[in-house]
Amino acid sequence: MSATTKKAIAVIAGIGNGTGTRMNLSRVQSLCGYRVALIARNPGHLRTLANEINVADGEAESFPIKNYGAADIQSAFSSISSRFPSSEIRVAIYNAGEGTFKKFFDVTDEDIERSTTTGIVGPFAFSRAVITAFKNNELSDPLKHPNEGARKRGTLIFTGATAALRGNTFTSLFSVTKFALRSLSQSLSKEFGPENIHVAHSIIDGGVLTDRTRTMRNDPQWETSGDVRLHPDSIAKAYKYLVEQDSSAFTWELDVRPAHEKW
Amino acid sequence: MSATTKKAIAVIAGIGNGTGTRMNLSRVQSLCGYRVALIARNPGHLRTLANEINVADGEAESFPIKNYGAADIQSAFSSISSRFPSSEIRVAIYNAGEGTFKKFFDVTDEDIERSTTTGIVGPFAFSRAVITAFKNNELSDPLKHPNEGARKRGTLIFTGATAALRGNTFTSLFSVTKFALRSLSQSLSKEFGPENIHVAHSIIDGGVLTDRTRTMRNDPQWETSGDVRLHPDSIAKAYKYLVEQDSSAFTWELDVRPAHEKW
Amino acid sequence: MSATTKKAIAVIAGIGNGTGTRMNLSRVQSLCGYRVALIARNPGHLRTLANEINVADGEAESFPIKNYGAADIQSAFSSISSRFPSSEIRVAIYNAGEGTFKKFFDVTDEDIERSTTTGIVGPFAFSRAVITAFKNNELSDPLKHPNEGARKRGTLIFTGATAALRGNTFTSLFSVTKFALRSLSQSLSKEFGPENIHVAHSIIDGGVLTDRTRTMRNDPQWETSGDVRLHPDSIAKAYKYLVEQDSSAFTWELDVRPAHEKW
Amino acid sequence: MSATTKKAIAVIAGIGNGTGTRMNLSRVQSLCGYRVALIARNPGHLRTLANEINVADGEAESFPIKNYGAADIQSAFSSISSRFPSSEIRVAIYNAGEGTFKKFFDVTDEDIERSTTTGIVGPFAFSRAVITAFKNNELSDPLKHPNEGARKRGTLIFTGATAALRGNTFTSLFSVTKFALRSLSQSLSKEFGPENIHVAHSIIDGGVLTDRTRTMRNDPQWETSGDVRLHPDSIAKAYKYLVEQDSSAFTWELDVRPAHEKW
Repeated sequence: MSATTKKAIAVIAGIGNGTGTRMNLSRVQSLCGYRVALIARNPGHLRTLANEINVADGEAESFPIKNYGAADIQSAFSSISSRFPSSEIRVAIYNAGEGTFKKFFDVTDEDIERSTTTGIVGPFAFSRAVITAFKNNELSDPLKHPNEGARKRGTLIFTGATAALRGNTFTSLFSVTKFALRSLSQSLSKEFGPENIHVAHSIIDGGVLTDRTRTMRNDPQWETSGDVRLHPDSIAKAYKYLVEQDSSAFTWELDVRPAHEKW
Repeated sequence: MSATTKKAIAVIAGIGNGTGTRMNLSRVQSLCGYRVALIARNPGHLRTLANEINVADGEAESFPIKNYGAADIQSAFSSISSRFPSSEIRVAIYNAGEGTFKKFFDVTDEDIERSTTTGIVGPFAFSRAVITAFKNNELSDPLKHPNEGARKRGTLIFTGATAALRGNTFTSLFSVTKFALRSLSQSLSKEFGPENIHVAHSIIDGGVLTDRTRTMRNDPQWETSGDVRLHPDSIAKAYKYLVEQDSSAFTWELDVRPAHEKW
Repeated sequence: MSATTKKAIAVIAGIGNGTGTRMNLSRVQSLCGYRVALIARNPGHLRTLANEINVADGEAESFPIKNYGAADIQSAFSSISSRFPSSEIRVAIYNAGEGTFKKFFDVTDEDIERSTTTGIVGPFAFSRAVITAFKNNELSDPLKHPNEGARKRGTLIFTGATAALRGNTFTSLFSVTKFALRSLSQSLSKEFGPENIHVAHSIIDGGVLTDRTRTMRNDPQWETSGDVRLHPDSIAKAYKYLVEQDSSAFTWELDVRPAHEKW
Repeated sequence: MSATTKKAIAVIAGIGNGTGTRMNLSRVQSLCGYRVALIARNPGHLRTLANEINVADGEAESFPIKNYGAADIQSAFSSISSRFPSSEIRVAIYNAGEGTFKKFFDVTDEDIERSTTTGIVGPFAFSRAVITAFKNNELSDPLKHPNEGARKRGTLIFTGATAALRGNTFTSLFSVTKFALRSLSQSLSKEFGPENIHVAHSIIDGGVLTDRTRTMRNDPQWETSGDVRLHPDSIAKAYKYLVEQDSSAFTWELDVRPAHEKW
């Protein structure tokens, strides 16, 4: 029981509608023995996902926020540490983002405001809380990770997209936030690597199978073929691999795409 | 006189203290026969620079703003068209930026707010006003630009930095805005190239000679050697070259650095 | 026994002195149940490494070549299929490369010849043999890889370096071959992804612990600290992860570096 | 007359069929007051182009080679200095390349041999001869280049392509040489910048108007529209700008593409 109490926490911000990547990340982390703290804006999706994980013998708790502003993020982390006072945060994944695909002249000031909040302000606040938490962790047992020294373990992953590598028509706004996120992940990786904190960035290149994309496409071929769309499980495996890396070989960036994707 | 009235306008946002790159850009544009419309926050620097250009037989006018929010930018452009009702904007340069070099934990919420305003909100508002203006220009005379067709001429340049290519310790915030600006410039270049609008991005890699850097360094060697620091004139020449490109060969990105720069 | 006969093959070209990354790749592949076919120039190192793997209950065979020219590579692959007529090649790793770090004026024509052979001619010949072999594999059992369809399995990995991303003083030649290798891996990934063949590229950024670097540095601190040098085991884990990816989420490029590496 | 004797030399390797970019580079350099030394494989094209330049009051001389191997290149440079014993080489442009667009399995060993010779061996030999020549130049008169110090002037430009930035189906071989060339240009820029030698790389992104492409396309619209194809004059202007840069602001890389190009 005290073991349970001390179980490490994986914080996941952004869960979409709770059926895609984010759901699987949560589930995988949970199955890996982490308590999952879910931060997102939609309380209904949060509740559904947390239930699903708890029913499957995982342990998840919801921390709804109004938006990804600094105050809300900070308050979510306060709630997390109140809820689990003696657990360490060891994994943190920032998935949130506004998928705004619009021609430049259709981008509104409100779009920009919302995108910079979710895409820049949020990641800064999230990183601040997460790295602060990592720095307070106990030194790990080197025996468990034979190729690294004792260290305060912590992995922070940002979910990126192809739009992080190039801007395009229709992505003037979306790409700005994805470039920004990639940059932040690189700066943090360089600044906190010397303290053994692992910061990584993924490039998710292709459509991900979710309830939403399934319905939207209504294409059984697309749904069932393993070569044309990203399966959330496979993304989750990539993140699991990143989390398990030892400090002798940290990855900053990794791309994933379906075999048949044109890129 | 009517020729004078119709003289094309170069809008330049961000002039620093008016002694470095931005000053020379203004001066060069002015000497190339453009009216220069200067947008910046410091009314004193604006006045000094405008005077200097006017005394040198150029033509410059100041349009001070409180900050680079959308409303201020839009209002500056309204003032520009009121002031020069029958002139076309043909060149626009966005130089503004917050040079925030801080360790991650020293970055404040206010820093983030100011940096996203100057580095993201401002560029969007500026681009919107500029591209709208370009679209209203008259078709150019193809005889003047033999390798391109008649077109509504317009060149929009964003001033970038090495931090646009990689994040680093101390640049978690600065680099975010520079990545974002680079992304925006690329998306706009792709979206508006088909309308013959030219959008470019420069990578200024190295220290620029200004009154401020001169005083700060207090190193005559650095000041006088042409190989170790960027001379504002040379940057201005690069921008002049970009502005003069015909639509058969537009450059999106160009880097400049002193010969001896380590990179 | 017939199961043994059909055991899949992992071909590894380039084993260094057999104590570093290449050794561990071989060992890991072997432990994963692959027969390891080792291609390299030094018969002594080959023999030692093969013995070591065989003693450890793996199964390795040596295929020495004179150099990485097309004829030698092709002949090595003929020997492999003669030796294991009924086994499939499912993994192939190209590690070979000339680590030529020299000032530009010290690079000889012979250096260039050797580097283009090992760095370009070899990879082309190797890829040709490998992809041909992959295309002949049987369709996999979809039950074993739930998120992908039945496919002819095959993963081809190229070992790259930071020099694949930027040229530098002292790397005029080395970097040329590493850029070339990265380019080849990307083209192949795009050309053969639609046939479910997985081609990946790693960026090994930092010093790797081998007998040679151990002796050269003679620094117990460097040797034992898990944060300052790459451990071959950790690189091998990265490759194992790549090999195990399903076709729903292939990675093209992944970097690995020690936590404390400056980059 | 003695001024004429000392006129500086621009060496240009690779002239295509003498009607496109390479022709215009030659013509522009010639009109800028350089003697043009043309190196290429086709003696007929060389003769035609040299004549054309000489008739137009420029000064060009042909130096045919059998291929871009080191011996041939070196011998061409010997001929150049025998022919113009008291002239300095101040500009050098490497345009040569094999435009091999083939599916991977159609690439022959001979293709690889020819591409590495023209794309790697040649550039190394060319750079060696050129940089050696630059180092022997006299110090320039600082009055002529106000923002730089006295220096041995020399600009070496490599002609690159979009394939230098990403590999693709059909470019497994072409892209390898273009990545390699880009890498070489970057290494040389970093190694010899401290000696004030300027090394640059261009990304030519799009179809260039030549006799050949004109005939091949047979599309008057494509031929006459200034927005859909690169005009050789416009590329030549870009190179002229690079050559004229002072050492306070050297550009390493610059891309050019038609306004309407999709990229």
